[in-house]
Amino acid sequence: MKKKNKKVNAGILIIGNEILSGRTQDKNVAFISNWLNSKCGISVSEVRVIPDIERIIVKNVLDLSKKFNYVFTTGGIGPTHDDITAQSISKAFKVNYEYHNEAFKILENYYGKSNFNDGRRKMAKMPRGAKLIYNPSSAAPGFIFKNVITLPGVPSILNSMIENCKRYLIKGSKVHSKTLNLFTVESNISKQLSQIQKKYQKFVDIGSYPFFRLGKIGVSIVVRSTSKVKLWSVNKDLIKMVRLKKIQILKI
Amino acid sequence: MKKKNKKVNAGILIIGNEILSGRTQDKNVAFISNWLNSKCGISVSEVRVIPDIERIIVKNVLDLSKKFNYVFTTGGIGPTHDDITAQSISKAFKVNYEYHNEAFKILENYYGKSNFNDGRRKMAKMPRGAKLIYNPSSAAPGFIFKNVITLPGVPSILNSMIENCKRYLIKGSKVHSKTLNLFTVESNISKQLSQIQKKYQKFVDIGSYPFFRLGKIGVSIVVRSTSKVKLWSVNKDLIKMVRLKKIQILKI
Repeated sequence: MKKKNKKVNAGILIIGNEILSGRTQDKNVAFISNWLNSKCGISVSEVRVIPDIERIIVKNVLDLSKKFNYVFTTGGIGPTHDDITAQSISKAFKVNYEYHNEAFKILENYYGKSNFNDGRRKMAKMPRGAKLIYNPSSAAPGFIFKNVITLPGVPSILNSMIENCKRYLIKGSKVHSKTLNLFTVESNISKQLSQIQKKYQKFVDIGSYPFFRLGKIGVSIVVRSTSKVKLWSVNKDLIKMVRLKKIQILKI
Repeated sequence: MKKKNKKVNAGILIIGNEILSGRTQDKNVAFISNWLNSKCGISVSEVRVIPDIERIIVKNVLDLSKKFNYVFTTGGIGPTHDDITAQSISKAFKVNYEYHNEAFKILENYYGKSNFNDGRRKMAKMPRGAKLIYNPSSAAPGFIFKNVITLPGVPSILNSMIENCKRYLIKGSKVHSKTLNLFTVESNISKQLSQIQKKYQKFVDIGSYPFFRLGKIGVSIVVRSTSKVKLWSVNKDLIKMVRLKKIQILKI
């Protein structure tokens, strides 16, 4: 089957007061986004960070679930009172919030029957009909229900589970990117960049990001496209501009 | 004037494909959120990360502007073609997108008349009626229009400007917090935490976050409240639980 340029997108919903308050620096967005693009050809189109409040989780899960092919939620699936993601997703889709048999067995086996208390049991509760996403590092599984994939908030645990999401995802076209690091300032090349962007219109996306390195100011030009051919054409145009303007390239 | 418990909230809108793609790790959310709470008593209630697409910026600016007392946007106010935040905000509020006289003078003076090209001039354009937020590190000002505060995306520049936002903000009640780091697992204390949370209901917010330190697993209990008195009462209850369960406290 010839692969067409197929766009598959996702939204990420970060659930947790600790990220909103600034106490914890989120690391899951960059990780999930890089993984989705490089392994599945899925682009993240929107991220929202919201508090641990049921009606807000319900609303945002439904919003993003309608807008994108997939929604990834992180956070709020542990054993404590502030972990309300699974019950909120059940409410959002109006299905029962109940024990998942296999999850219950996994957790009972992990903790041992005598230590399997209420908090630990809670981690086996999810929307009826959810499918498990196995957790190789700390047992408690994530799950997928409709197009919503629910993962934990702790980055090391989430990272260990991400490959187990793959089987549930339709693949899209990977977005390739090429970066050119230039020792110049944005305002020196903005006109030319704009012309090149116009020339290639919707086939490529040219971004320009200032950096500070080796005591000097520079700009990273990032070109992104699902077409490698287009990417190289843009790169040729950029190199032509760089030579014409006698701009130094930073090799890394 | 006696200070009442006054809730002032904000939303943050991170504008930029580089954050969505995972290429760049956002650092502005944690910085702005910590600053707003500690310096202004303003709580961040929602964060959204969106791409550099005009209609999406317009929609999200309007959404968050209606929902919260303030909206902070970051990114998209540089000189290149992908910097479209100021024009999008103008469009959102249906006002002219035009040169701001003072901003124009600041930038002309900074670059020098002969180097003041189109890209650099673009940074002086903003919604008609905007007020400047001065930039001590790289001249190009941010601005406030209605309840929307527009800042750059480069963290070092944003950080240097944040104090200049203060004069435009109404102050709320600061949320105080107290953290107790325990060498235990969440599921060992989830029942007790839930009871304590219920006892204090809406006056405090108790969060529980797993950590890994010194080769051991632990849980940070973070209690947040605008009332210091309530904070200490909860802390007393927590210490009682810790003693009863013979849990070791990590002192830092």
